[in-house]
Amino acid sequence: MEPSERVDYKYRVEVCFMPGQYPLYAPDMEIVVVIDILRATSAMVAAFEHGIDRIIPVATVEEARPYIGREGYIAAAERNGEVVEGFSYGNSPLAYLGQDLKGKTIVMTTTNGTRAINLAKDARMLVIGSFLNFTALSDWLVKQNDNILLLCSGWKDKFNLEDSMFAGAVMERLMASGKFGVEEDSSIAAKYMFMSGRDHYLGLLKAAPRRKRIEQLKLLHDVKYCLTPDQSRVIPVLRNDELVLLDTST
Amino acid sequence: MEPSERVDYKYRVEVCFMPGQYPLYAPDMEIVVVIDILRATSAMVAAFEHGIDRIIPVATVEEARPYIGREGYIAAAERNGEVVEGFSYGNSPLAYLGQDLKGKTIVMTTTNGTRAINLAKDARMLVIGSFLNFTALSDWLVKQNDNILLLCSGWKDKFNLEDSMFAGAVMERLMASGKFGVEEDSSIAAKYMFMSGRDHYLGLLKAAPRRKRIEQLKLLHDVKYCLTPDQSRVIPVLRNDELVLLDTST
Repeated sequence: MEPSERVDYKYRVEVCFMPGQYPLYAPDMEIVVVIDILRATSAMVAAFEHGIDRIIPVATVEEARPYIGREGYIAAAERNGEVVEGFSYGNSPLAYLGQDLKGKTIVMTTTNGTRAINLAKDARMLVIGSFLNFTALSDWLVKQNDNILLLCSGWKDKFNLEDSMFAGAVMERLMASGKFGVEEDSSIAAKYMFMSGRDHYLGLLKAAPRRKRIEQLKLLHDVKYCLTPDQSRVIPVLRNDELVLLDTST
Repeated sequence: MEPSERVDYKYRVEVCFMPGQYPLYAPDMEIVVVIDILRATSAMVAAFEHGIDRIIPVATVEEARPYIGREGYIAAAERNGEVVEGFSYGNSPLAYLGQDLKGKTIVMTTTNGTRAINLAKDARMLVIGSFLNFTALSDWLVKQNDNILLLCSGWKDKFNLEDSMFAGAVMERLMASGKFGVEEDSSIAAKYMFMSGRDHYLGLLKAAPRRKRIEQLKLLHDVKYCLTPDQSRVIPVLRNDELVLLDTST
Protein backbone atom coordinates (compact mmCIF):
# COMPACT_ATOMS: atom_id res chain seq x y z
CA MET A 1 0.00 0.00 0.00
CA GLU A 2 1.48 3.34 -0.99
CA PRO A 3 1.09 6.33 1.35
CA SER A 4 -1.34 7.98 -1.06
CA GLU A 5 -3.61 4.92 -0.91
CA ARG A 6 -3.88 4.90 2.85
CA VAL A 7 -7.41 4.78 4.11
CA ASP A 8 -8.20 6.98 7.04
CA TYR A 9 -10.30 5.37 9.74
CA LYS A 10 -12.11 6.79 12.68
CA TYR A 11 -12.07 3.95 15.16
CA ARG A 12 -9.81 1.06 16.02
CA VAL A 13 -10.57 -2.63 16.22
CA GLU A 14 -7.83 -4.68 17.87
CA VAL A 15 -7.26 -8.31 18.81
CA CYS A 16 -5.83 -9.36 22.18
CA PHE A 17 -4.66 -12.99 22.02
CA MET A 18 -4.86 -13.90 25.70
CA PRO A 19 -6.31 -12.52 28.94
CA GLY A 20 -2.85 -11.90 30.43
CA GLN A 21 -2.23 -9.31 27.72
CA TYR A 22 -5.50 -7.46 28.39
CA PRO A 23 -3.98 -4.63 30.50
CA LEU A 24 -1.65 -3.78 27.58
CA TYR A 25 -4.57 -3.48 25.16
CA ALA A 26 -7.33 -2.05 27.36
CA PRO A 27 -6.41 1.67 27.23
CA ASP A 28 -8.60 3.62 24.77
CA MET A 29 -10.89 0.64 24.19
CA GLU A 30 -14.58 1.22 24.83
CA ILE A 31 -16.26 -2.02 23.76
CA VAL A 32 -14.76 -5.41 24.68
CA VAL A 33 -15.96 -8.56 22.91
CA VAL A 34 -15.11 -11.64 24.98
CA ILE A 35 -14.48 -14.74 22.87
CA ASP A 36 -14.25 -18.34 24.08
CA ILE A 37 -15.32 -20.40 21.10
CA LEU A 38 -14.70 -23.78 22.77
CA ARG A 39 -17.02 -23.42 24.56
CA ALA A 40 -18.07 -20.81 27.13
CA THR A 41 -19.21 -17.95 24.91
CA SER A 42 -20.83 -20.38 22.46
CA ALA A 43 -22.78 -21.90 25.37
CA MET A 44 -23.84 -18.42 26.55
CA VAL A 45 -25.24 -17.49 23.15
CA ALA A 46 -26.98 -20.89 22.87
CA ALA A 47 -28.56 -20.42 26.31
CA PHE A 48 -29.94 -16.97 25.43
CA GLU A 49 -31.13 -18.28 22.08
CA HIS A 50 -33.08 -20.90 24.01
CA GLY A 51 -34.76 -18.47 26.36
CA ILE A 52 -32.57 -17.98 29.41
CA ASP A 53 -33.14 -14.67 31.23
CA ARG A 54 -29.64 -13.96 32.49
CA ILE A 55 -26.26 -15.53 33.10
CA ILE A 56 -24.13 -14.67 36.11
CA PRO A 57 -20.49 -15.40 35.25
CA VAL A 58 -18.45 -16.19 38.35
CA ALA A 59 -14.73 -16.74 38.74
CA THR A 60 -14.72 -19.72 41.11
CA VAL A 61 -16.48 -23.07 41.47
CA GLU A 62 -17.26 -22.15 45.07
CA GLU A 63 -19.38 -19.21 43.94
CA ALA A 64 -21.41 -21.42 41.58
CA ARG A 65 -21.95 -24.36 43.92
CA PRO A 66 -24.67 -22.82 46.19
CA TYR A 67 -26.92 -22.58 43.11
CA ILE A 68 -27.02 -26.33 42.46
CA GLY A 69 -30.68 -27.40 42.69
CA ARG A 70 -31.90 -23.91 43.61
CA GLU A 71 -35.30 -23.03 42.10
CA GLY A 72 -34.97 -20.95 38.94
CA TYR A 73 -31.21 -21.45 38.67
CA ILE A 74 -28.89 -23.62 36.60
CA ALA A 75 -25.42 -24.03 38.10
CA ALA A 76 -22.75 -24.67 35.48
CA ALA A 77 -19.06 -25.33 36.16
CA GLU A 78 -16.29 -26.50 33.86
CA ARG A 79 -12.60 -27.02 34.55
CA ASN A 80 -10.10 -28.52 32.09
CA GLY A 81 -12.84 -29.22 29.57
CA GLU A 82 -14.96 -31.34 31.92
CA VAL A 83 -18.06 -30.81 34.06
CA VAL A 84 -16.99 -30.23 37.66
CA GLU A 85 -18.08 -32.97 40.08
CA GLY A 86 -21.44 -32.30 41.63
CA PHE A 87 -22.65 -30.15 38.74
CA SER A 88 -24.96 -31.27 35.92
CA TYR A 89 -23.85 -28.53 33.53
CA GLY A 90 -20.40 -27.58 32.29
CA ASN A 91 -19.72 -25.39 29.27
CA SER A 92 -21.37 -27.49 26.54
CA PRO A 93 -23.86 -25.44 24.51
CA LEU A 94 -25.68 -28.66 23.58
CA ALA A 95 -26.86 -29.00 27.19
CA TYR A 96 -29.14 -25.99 26.69
CA LEU A 97 -30.89 -27.16 23.53
CA GLY A 98 -34.47 -28.46 23.66
CA GLN A 99 -35.01 -27.11 27.17
CA ASP A 100 -37.43 -24.57 28.53
CA LEU A 101 -35.09 -22.00 30.00
CA LYS A 102 -37.50 -19.08 30.19
CA GLY A 103 -37.23 -17.06 33.40
CA LYS A 104 -34.19 -19.00 34.54
CA THR A 105 -30.72 -17.80 35.51
CA ILE A 106 -27.47 -19.63 34.81
CA VAL A 107 -24.59 -19.20 37.23
CA MET A 108 -21.52 -20.22 35.25
CA THR A 109 -17.80 -20.66 35.85
CA THR A 110 -15.37 -21.95 33.21
CA THR A 111 -11.61 -22.40 32.86
CA ASN A 112 -11.03 -19.48 30.50
CA GLY A 113 -14.16 -17.63 29.37
CA THR A 114 -15.63 -16.43 32.64
CA ARG A 115 -12.11 -15.48 33.74
CA ALA A 116 -11.76 -13.22 30.71
CA ILE A 117 -15.17 -11.66 31.43
CA ASN A 118 -14.15 -11.00 34.99
CA LEU A 119 -10.91 -9.36 33.88
CA ALA A 120 -12.64 -7.00 31.46
CA LYS A 121 -15.81 -6.31 33.43
CA ASP A 122 -14.92 -2.66 33.96
CA ALA A 123 -14.91 -1.93 30.23
CA ARG A 124 -17.53 0.64 29.21
CA MET A 125 -19.39 -2.17 27.45
CA LEU A 126 -18.72 -5.92 27.38
CA VAL A 127 -20.47 -8.21 24.89
CA ILE A 128 -20.19 -11.92 24.09
CA GLY A 129 -19.01 -13.25 20.73
CA SER A 130 -19.08 -16.69 19.12
CA PHE A 131 -19.58 -18.16 15.67
CA LEU A 132 -23.22 -18.74 16.69
CA ASN A 133 -23.93 -15.00 16.68
CA PHE A 134 -21.19 -13.91 14.26
CA THR A 135 -23.26 -11.91 11.78
CA ALA A 136 -25.58 -10.36 14.39
CA LEU A 137 -22.55 -9.29 16.42
CA SER A 138 -20.63 -7.95 13.43
CA ASP A 139 -23.68 -6.05 12.13
CA TRP A 140 -24.07 -4.41 15.51
CA LEU A 141 -20.35 -3.68 16.05
CA VAL A 142 -19.98 -1.99 12.68
CA LYS A 143 -22.63 0.54 13.70
CA GLN A 144 -20.83 1.55 16.90
CA ASN A 145 -18.75 4.72 17.10
CA ASP A 146 -16.20 3.32 19.52
CA ASN A 147 -12.88 1.55 19.69
CA ILE A 148 -13.42 -2.20 19.89
CA LEU A 149 -11.23 -4.83 21.50
CA LEU A 150 -11.69 -8.48 20.58
CA LEU A 151 -10.49 -10.34 23.68
CA CYS A 152 -9.61 -14.01 23.16
CA SER A 153 -9.95 -16.16 26.26
CA GLY A 154 -7.21 -18.53 25.11
CA TRP A 155 -6.37 -21.75 26.90
CA LYS A 156 -4.93 -21.38 30.38
CA ASP A 157 -3.29 -18.06 29.51
CA LYS A 158 -1.91 -19.37 26.23
CA PHE A 159 -2.82 -18.46 22.68
CA ASN A 160 -5.51 -20.54 21.04
CA LEU A 161 -6.37 -20.92 17.39
CA GLU A 162 -10.18 -20.90 17.39
CA ASP A 163 -10.60 -17.71 19.42
CA SER A 164 -7.98 -15.90 17.34
CA MET A 165 -9.46 -17.05 14.05
CA PHE A 166 -12.91 -15.90 15.10
CA ALA A 167 -11.43 -12.53 16.09
CA GLY A 168 -9.84 -12.39 12.63
CA ALA A 169 -13.23 -13.03 11.04
CA VAL A 170 -14.81 -10.13 12.95
CA MET A 171 -11.79 -7.92 12.13
CA GLU A 172 -12.19 -8.59 8.45
CA ARG A 173 -15.87 -7.62 8.55
CA LEU A 174 -15.22 -4.41 10.49
CA MET A 175 -12.23 -3.34 8.41
CA ALA A 176 -14.20 -3.86 5.19
CA SER A 177 -16.49 -1.07 6.38
CA GLY A 178 -13.64 1.45 6.07
CA LYS A 179 -14.66 2.84 9.45
CA PHE A 180 -12.23 0.80 11.54
CA GLY A 181 -8.47 0.44 11.39
CA VAL A 182 -5.77 -1.30 13.44
CA GLU A 183 -2.54 -0.36 15.19
CA GLU A 184 -1.48 -3.70 16.64
CA ASP A 185 0.45 -6.48 14.90
CA SER A 186 -1.71 -9.05 16.69
CA SER A 187 -4.77 -7.71 14.87
CA ILE A 188 -3.09 -8.02 11.46
CA ALA A 189 -1.98 -11.54 12.35
CA ALA A 190 -5.50 -12.59 13.39
CA LYS A 191 -6.82 -11.44 10.03
CA TYR A 192 -4.15 -13.43 8.17
CA MET A 193 -4.93 -16.52 10.22
CA PHE A 194 -8.60 -16.25 9.42
CA MET A 195 -7.88 -15.71 5.73
CA SER A 196 -5.68 -18.84 5.68
CA GLY A 197 -8.22 -20.98 7.46
CA ARG A 198 -11.62 -19.59 6.49
CA ASP A 199 -12.67 -22.46 4.26
CA HIS A 200 -11.82 -25.25 6.64
CA TYR A 201 -12.22 -24.27 10.29
CA LEU A 202 -13.03 -27.72 11.43
CA GLY A 203 -10.26 -29.37 9.41
CA LEU A 204 -7.81 -26.85 10.78
CA LEU A 205 -8.79 -27.48 14.36
CA LYS A 206 -8.83 -31.22 13.83
CA ALA A 207 -5.30 -31.03 12.43
CA ALA A 208 -4.19 -28.92 15.37
CA PRO A 209 -2.63 -30.70 18.34
CA ARG A 210 -5.72 -30.02 20.39
CA ARG A 211 -7.45 -32.61 18.23
CA LYS A 212 -6.25 -35.20 20.65
CA ARG A 213 -7.85 -33.41 23.56
CA ILE A 214 -11.07 -32.91 21.62
CA GLU A 215 -11.26 -36.61 20.84
CA GLN A 216 -10.41 -37.66 24.36
CA LEU A 217 -13.17 -35.49 25.76
CA LYS A 218 -15.61 -36.66 23.07
CA LEU A 219 -16.17 -33.05 22.13
CA LEU A 220 -16.56 -33.42 18.39
CA HIS A 221 -20.33 -32.72 18.40
CA ASP A 222 -19.76 -29.67 20.56
CA VAL A 223 -16.96 -28.46 18.31
CA LYS A 224 -19.03 -28.78 15.15
CA TYR A 225 -21.88 -26.90 16.81
CA CYS A 226 -19.57 -24.16 18.13
CA LEU A 227 -18.02 -23.62 14.69
CA THR A 228 -21.34 -23.31 12.84
CA PRO A 229 -21.96 -19.62 12.24
CA ASP A 230 -25.17 -17.65 12.54
CA GLN A 231 -27.43 -19.92 14.53
CA SER A 232 -28.63 -16.96 16.56
CA ARG A 233 -29.16 -13.19 16.45
CA VAL A 234 -28.73 -12.64 20.20
CA ILE A 235 -25.91 -10.59 21.71
CA PRO A 236 -25.34 -11.07 25.44
CA VAL A 237 -24.12 -7.92 27.22
CA LEU A 238 -22.75 -7.45 30.75
CA ARG A 239 -24.83 -5.16 32.97
CA ASN A 240 -24.14 -4.96 36.71
CA ASP A 241 -22.03 -8.13 36.56
CA GLU A 242 -24.81 -10.13 34.86
CA LEU A 243 -25.14 -11.08 31.23
CA VAL A 244 -28.48 -10.08 29.73
CA LEU A 245 -29.80 -9.69 26.19
CA LEU A 246 -28.63 -6.60 24.35
CA ASP A 247 -31.46 -4.68 22.73
CA THR A 248 -30.02 -4.01 19.28
CA SER A 249 -33.09 -2.17 17.99
CA THR A 250 -32.01 1.16 19.46
CA MET B 1 -5.43 -35.32 8.35
CA GLU B 2 -6.91 -38.70 9.21
CA PRO B 3 -5.64 -40.58 12.26
CA SER B 4 -3.95 -43.17 10.06
CA GLU B 5 -1.92 -40.46 8.37
CA ARG B 6 -0.55 -39.04 11.57
CA VAL B 7 3.19 -38.69 11.58
CA ASP B 8 4.97 -39.64 14.74
CA TYR B 9 7.68 -37.25 15.83
CA LYS B 10 10.40 -37.51 18.37
CA TYR B 11 10.93 -33.93 19.41
CA ARG B 12 8.87 -30.80 19.70
CA VAL B 13 9.40 -27.37 18.20
CA GLU B 14 7.16 -24.66 19.64
CA VAL B 15 6.66 -20.94 19.21
CA CYS B 16 6.27 -18.55 22.14
CA PHE B 17 4.88 -15.20 20.92
CA MET B 18 6.15 -12.92 23.68
CA PRO B 19 8.61 -13.00 26.58
CA GLY B 20 5.84 -12.76 29.18
CA GLN B 21 4.58 -16.17 28.04
CA TYR B 22 8.01 -17.81 28.38
CA PRO B 23 7.40 -19.46 31.77
CA LEU B 24 4.34 -21.25 30.31
CA TYR B 25 6.39 -22.67 27.44
CA ALA B 26 9.78 -23.27 29.06
CA PRO B 27 9.11 -26.69 30.69
CA ASP B 28 10.56 -29.57 28.66
CA MET B 29 12.37 -27.23 26.28
CA GLU B 30 16.10 -27.75 25.92
CA ILE B 31 17.15 -25.31 23.19
CA VAL B 32 15.78 -21.77 23.12
CA VAL B 33 16.16 -19.65 19.98
CA VAL B 34 15.80 -15.95 20.80
CA ILE B 35 14.36 -13.90 17.94
CA ASP B 36 14.29 -10.11 17.64
CA ILE B 37 14.25 -9.48 13.90
CA LEU B 38 13.95 -5.66 14.20
CA ARG B 39 16.73 -5.44 15.19
CA ALA B 40 18.69 -6.89 18.12
CA THR B 41 19.28 -10.47 16.98
CA SER B 42 19.89 -9.32 13.39
CA ALA B 43 22.55 -6.92 14.72
CA MET B 44 24.13 -9.70 16.78
CA VAL B 45 24.48 -11.99 13.78
CA ALA B 46 25.83 -9.11 11.67
CA ALA B 47 28.43 -8.28 14.33
CA PHE B 48 29.69 -11.89 14.52
CA GLU B 49 29.70 -12.08 10.73
CA HIS B 50 32.00 -9.06 10.76
CA GLY B 51 34.45 -10.47 13.25
CA ILE B 52 33.34 -9.55 16.75
CA ASP B 53 34.66 -11.89 19.47
CA ARG B 54 31.79 -11.82 21.91
CA ILE B 55 28.65 -9.92 22.85
CA ILE B 56 27.60 -9.37 26.45
CA PRO B 57 23.83 -8.80 26.54
CA VAL B 58 22.81 -6.72 29.55
CA ALA B 59 19.35 -5.80 30.79
CA THR B 60 19.90 -2.13 31.69
CA VAL B 61 21.46 0.96 30.11
CA GLU B 62 23.39 1.50 33.35
CA GLU B 63 25.22 -1.79 32.88
CA ALA B 64 26.27 -0.83 29.35
CA ARG B 65 27.33 2.76 30.05
CA PRO B 66 30.72 2.07 31.76
CA TYR B 67 31.91 0.46 28.50
CA ILE B 68 31.57 3.65 26.42
CA GLY B 69 35.04 4.48 25.09
CA ARG B 70 36.69 1.57 26.89
CA GLU B 71 39.54 -0.06 24.88
CA GLY B 72 38.35 -3.18 23.07
CA TYR B 73 34.67 -2.62 23.80
CA ILE B 74 31.71 -1.29 21.87
CA ALA B 75 28.84 -0.10 24.06
CA ALA B 76 25.45 -0.37 22.36
CA ALA B 77 22.13 0.75 23.84
CA GLU B 78 18.71 1.10 22.24
CA ARG B 79 15.38 2.09 23.75
CA ASN B 80 12.17 2.65 21.81
CA GLY B 81 13.94 2.12 18.51
CA GLU B 82 16.54 4.85 19.05
CA VAL B 83 20.18 5.00 20.16
CA VAL B 84 20.31 5.97 23.83
CA GLU B 85 21.91 9.36 24.49
CA GLY B 86 25.64 9.16 25.10
CA PHE B 87 26.00 5.95 23.06
CA SER B 88 27.27 5.73 19.46
CA TYR B 89 25.66 2.34 18.82
CA GLY B 90 22.06 1.19 19.18
CA ASN B 91 20.64 -1.97 17.64
CA SER B 92 21.21 -1.23 13.95
CA PRO B 93 23.09 -4.08 12.24
CA LEU B 94 24.34 -1.63 9.60
CA ALA B 95 26.55 0.03 12.22
CA TYR B 96 28.75 -3.07 12.29
CA LEU B 97 29.37 -3.37 8.56
CA GLY B 98 32.71 -2.34 7.04
CA GLN B 99 34.40 -2.22 10.45
CA ASP B 100 37.29 -4.17 11.89
CA LEU B 101 35.66 -5.81 14.89
CA LYS B 102 38.22 -8.57 15.47
CA GLY B 103 39.09 -9.10 19.13
CA LYS B 104 36.40 -6.69 20.29
CA THR B 105 33.47 -7.17 22.66
CA ILE B 106 30.05 -5.56 22.33
CA VAL B 107 28.10 -4.80 25.49
CA MET B 108 24.50 -4.45 24.31
CA THR B 109 21.14 -3.58 25.81
CA THR B 110 17.94 -3.28 23.75
CA THR B 111 14.22 -2.75 24.43
CA ASN B 112 13.13 -6.32 23.72
CA GLY B 113 15.87 -8.66 22.50
CA THR B 114 18.36 -8.57 25.37
CA ARG B 115 15.42 -8.77 27.78
CA ALA B 116 14.29 -12.03 26.16
CA ILE B 117 17.85 -13.39 26.35
CA ASN B 118 18.03 -12.52 30.02
CA LEU B 119 14.71 -14.23 30.69
CA ALA B 120 15.76 -17.48 29.01
CA LYS B 121 19.43 -17.54 30.01
CA ASP B 122 18.97 -20.62 32.19
CA ALA B 123 17.86 -22.77 29.24
CA ARG B 124 20.21 -25.68 28.59
CA MET B 125 21.24 -23.94 25.36
CA LEU B 126 20.33 -20.48 24.03
CA VAL B 127 21.08 -19.47 20.43
CA ILE B 128 20.34 -16.38 18.35
CA GLY B 129 18.09 -16.42 15.29
CA SER B 130 17.45 -13.91 12.49
CA PHE B 131 16.76 -13.97 8.78
CA LEU B 132 20.50 -13.27 8.32
CA ASN B 133 21.42 -16.76 9.57
CA PHE B 134 18.13 -18.53 8.76
CA THR B 135 19.48 -21.48 6.76
CA ALA B 136 22.57 -22.01 8.92
CA LEU B 137 20.39 -21.99 12.03
CA SER B 138 17.74 -24.28 10.57
CA ASP B 139 20.37 -26.73 9.26
CA TRP B 140 21.87 -26.92 12.73
CA LEU B 141 18.57 -27.12 14.61
CA VAL B 142 17.29 -29.98 12.48
CA LYS B 143 20.28 -32.08 13.55
CA GLN B 144 19.61 -31.60 17.27
CA ASN B 145 17.92 -34.27 19.34
CA ASP B 146 16.15 -31.89 21.66
CA ASN B 147 12.92 -29.98 22.13
CA ILE B 148 13.26 -26.51 20.65
CA LEU B 149 11.49 -23.31 21.69
CA LEU B 150 11.40 -20.36 19.30
CA LEU B 151 11.10 -17.35 21.61
CA CYS B 152 9.87 -14.14 19.99
CA SER B 153 11.01 -10.97 21.71
CA GLY B 154 7.90 -9.08 20.61
CA TRP B 155 7.46 -5.36 21.12
CA LYS B 156 7.17 -4.22 24.73
CA ASP B 157 5.57 -7.49 25.80
CA LYS B 158 3.15 -7.52 22.87
CA PHE B 159 2.99 -9.82 19.89
CA ASN B 160 4.91 -8.74 16.80
CA LEU B 161 4.58 -9.88 13.25
CA GLU B 162 8.20 -10.15 12.08
CA ASP B 163 9.43 -12.30 14.97
CA SER B 164 6.42 -14.61 14.69
CA MET B 165 6.73 -14.97 10.94
CA PHE B 166 10.41 -15.83 11.24
CA ALA B 167 9.52 -18.42 13.89
CA GLY B 168 6.96 -19.81 11.44
CA ALA B 169 9.65 -20.09 8.76
CA VAL B 170 11.92 -22.08 11.08
CA MET B 171 8.95 -24.23 12.17
CA GLU B 172 8.15 -25.12 8.61
CA ARG B 173 11.76 -26.19 7.97
CA LEU B 174 11.93 -28.31 11.10
CA MET B 175 8.52 -29.93 10.64
CA ALA B 176 9.37 -30.85 7.04
CA SER B 177 12.10 -33.10 8.47
CA GLY B 178 9.46 -35.33 10.10
CA LYS B 179 11.57 -35.34 13.24
CA PHE B 180 9.77 -32.48 14.98
CA GLY B 181 6.13 -31.95 15.87
CA VAL B 182 4.08 -29.40 17.78
CA GLU B 183 1.61 -29.34 20.67
CA GLU B 184 0.83 -25.64 20.93
CA ASP B 185 -1.71 -23.66 18.91
CA SER B 186 0.72 -20.72 18.77
CA SER B 187 3.16 -22.88 16.80
CA ILE B 188 0.50 -23.83 14.24
CA ALA B 189 -0.53 -20.18 13.96
CA ALA B 190 3.07 -19.04 13.35
CA LYS B 191 3.37 -21.51 10.51
CA TYR B 192 0.12 -20.27 8.92
CA MET B 193 1.28 -16.66 9.23
CA PHE B 194 4.54 -17.49 7.51
CA MET B 195 2.77 -19.38 4.75
CA SER B 196 0.45 -16.38 4.15
CA GLY B 197 3.28 -13.89 4.07
CA ARG B 198 6.30 -15.80 2.73
CA ASP B 199 6.42 -14.11 -0.65
CA HIS B 200 6.19 -10.54 0.56
CA TYR B 201 7.74 -10.04 4.00
CA LEU B 202 8.65 -6.47 3.35
CA GLY B 203 5.30 -5.58 1.81
CA LEU B 204 3.55 -7.18 4.74
CA LEU B 205 5.52 -5.25 7.31
CA LYS B 206 5.17 -2.03 5.33
CA ALA B 207 1.41 -2.52 5.26
CA ALA B 208 1.40 -3.20 9.00
CA PRO B 209 0.70 -0.29 11.34
CA ARG B 210 4.32 -0.32 12.44
CA ARG B 211 5.14 1.06 9.01
CA LYS B 212 4.60 4.51 10.43
CA ARG B 213 7.12 3.93 13.17
CA ILE B 214 9.61 2.48 10.73
CA GLU B 215 9.33 5.53 8.52
CA GLN B 216 9.54 7.95 11.39
CA LEU B 217 12.71 6.33 12.63
CA LYS B 218 14.15 6.18 9.10
CA LEU B 219 14.60 2.45 9.54
CA LEU B 220 13.79 1.30 6.05
CA HIS B 221 17.42 0.41 5.15
CA ASP B 222 17.73 -1.49 8.41
CA VAL B 223 14.45 -3.30 7.80
CA LYS B 224 15.42 -4.40 4.30
CA TYR B 225 18.76 -5.68 5.61
CA CYS B 226 17.14 -7.50 8.54
CA LEU B 227 14.64 -9.24 6.26
CA THR B 228 17.25 -10.47 3.76
CA PRO B 229 17.88 -14.13 4.51
CA ASP B 230 21.14 -16.03 4.55
CA GLN B 231 23.76 -13.32 4.68
CA SER B 232 25.70 -15.31 7.25
CA ARG B 233 26.43 -18.85 8.49
CA VAL B 234 27.20 -17.82 12.08
CA ILE B 235 25.12 -18.92 15.07
CA PRO B 236 25.69 -16.97 18.29
CA VAL B 237 25.29 -19.07 21.43
CA LEU B 238 25.10 -18.02 25.09
CA ARG B 239 27.91 -19.38 27.28
CA ASN B 240 28.44 -18.03 30.79
CA ASP B 241 26.17 -15.06 30.07
CA GLU B 242 28.15 -14.09 26.96
CA LEU B 243 27.29 -14.67 23.34
CA VAL B 244 30.06 -16.38 21.41
CA LEU B 245 30.25 -18.22 18.09
CA LEU B 246 28.80 -21.71 18.10
CA ASP B 247 31.10 -24.28 16.57
CA THR B 248 28.72 -26.17 14.29
CA SER B 249 31.37 -28.55 12.94
CA THR B 250 31.08 -30.95 15.87
